[in-house]
Amino acid sequence: MSRRTRPHNAAQKKLKILVDMDQVLCDFEGGFLSKYQEKFPDEPFIPLEERNTFYIVDQYTKLRRDLQDKAREILHAEGFFLGLQPIEGARDALMEMWQMDDTEVFICTSPHSHYKYCVFEKFKWVEDHLGEEWINRLILTKDKTMVNGDLLIDDRPRIRGALDPPAWKQVLFSAPYNLSIDSRGRQRLNNWTDGQWRNIVEDFKKRI
Amino acid sequence: MSRRTRPHNAAQKKLKILVDMDQVLCDFEGGFLSKYQEKFPDEPFIPLEERNTFYIVDQYTKLRRDLQDKAREILHAEGFFLGLQPIEGARDALMEMWQMDDTEVFICTSPHSHYKYCVFEKFKWVEDHLGEEWINRLILTKDKTMVNGDLLIDDRPRIRGALDPPAWKQVLFSAPYNLSIDSRGRQRLNNWTDGQWRNIVEDFKKRI
Repeated sequence: MSRRTRPHNAAQKKLKILVDMDQVLCDFEGGFLSKYQEKFPDEPFIPLEERNTFYIVDQYTKLRRDLQDKAREILHAEGFFLGLQPIEGARDALMEMWQMDDTEVFICTSPHSHYKYCVFEKFKWVEDHLGEEWINRLILTKDKTMVNGDLLIDDRPRIRGALDPPAWKQVLFSAPYNLSIDSRGRQRLNNWTDGQWRNIVEDFKKRI
Repeated sequence: MSRRTRPHNAAQKKLKILVDMDQVLCDFEGGFLSKYQEKFPDEPFIPLEERNTFYIVDQYTKLRRDLQDKAREILHAEGFFLGLQPIEGARDALMEMWQMDDTEVFICTSPHSHYKYCVFEKFKWVEDHLGEEWINRLILTKDKTMVNGDLLIDDRPRIRGALDPPAWKQVLFSAPYNLSIDSRGRQRLNNWTDGQWRNIVEDFKKRI
């Protein structure tokens, strides 16, 4: 894919789109379940459609106290983040979004507190799946409210931080654990495959 | 040091200060020179006060073409970022700044493109030198204009990105390679030890 050539100083009129990684670009839940079942085939597990907490460890802890450490072991292991598969349609949507004349697209992700492998692997994942130039569009921060942008596509039900309200509006990317919550006026994006993301982007373009 | 307890919803009235890492919090230049001289004792080197390019590799390449790879070897090595010493007074200033009632302080750093060790080591450096809670205040991005804030203390002469102008005003932290440039109306901070940073912070507080 060729890089867009456009005058840099026109950028401020462009729609600035922030896209989360885990469970928006990368199949975090599917990756976890498959590694967990592989490593602990005799332990109970939570099927994807029954996941009901944002943090996966919370629900495994509730299921059985000693599963907390087992769930953490999966998340903290070398290769966990790097091995995640892309969410269906995410790469194509991101590339198309980025190719639009009037957008700026950044990936905005919160690293795991156990960052030993996570931060490197997030960079490597982006390079491997999206291309080296996307390293320049990757923002790692625990506080996403500190990032500028017009919209943030993110599965997390509640995003808080130092800036309230943040510059962006959240578009809630659907995941099992956020389906039942009140989206409180936020638009939802259910997937990257039905083309609905284009309508949302066009709608936001009218607002800036 | 005890963590400040203050109501979260008062945060938006606080001065949001972004502080760069390399050559502002960490002694990047000193660390480079010491590792370079240790590894290549017979090669020519550039004394700190003669450094005149923002990117260190550029000046070594100019000095002698084949020194480019040697300079890169130092920067890309495991342990380079982790081994950097704090800039004198930086830690105390950062802690005092953070303890103020009306500030929010974040570290805002651009990772090296050769990120294999750099991104992990930046997180580890922050944890080791400032404490685990500062991981929550660390923002990694190649494009600092995408970060919200009132001021950015940074040694880089020219900071460009998708947002022009950015939300913050830069305070130019003095370094050998930026001493001779026109600061173009930006305030300068020469060091963390003479207390001048407090005046700059107070001055910015009046503007928000």
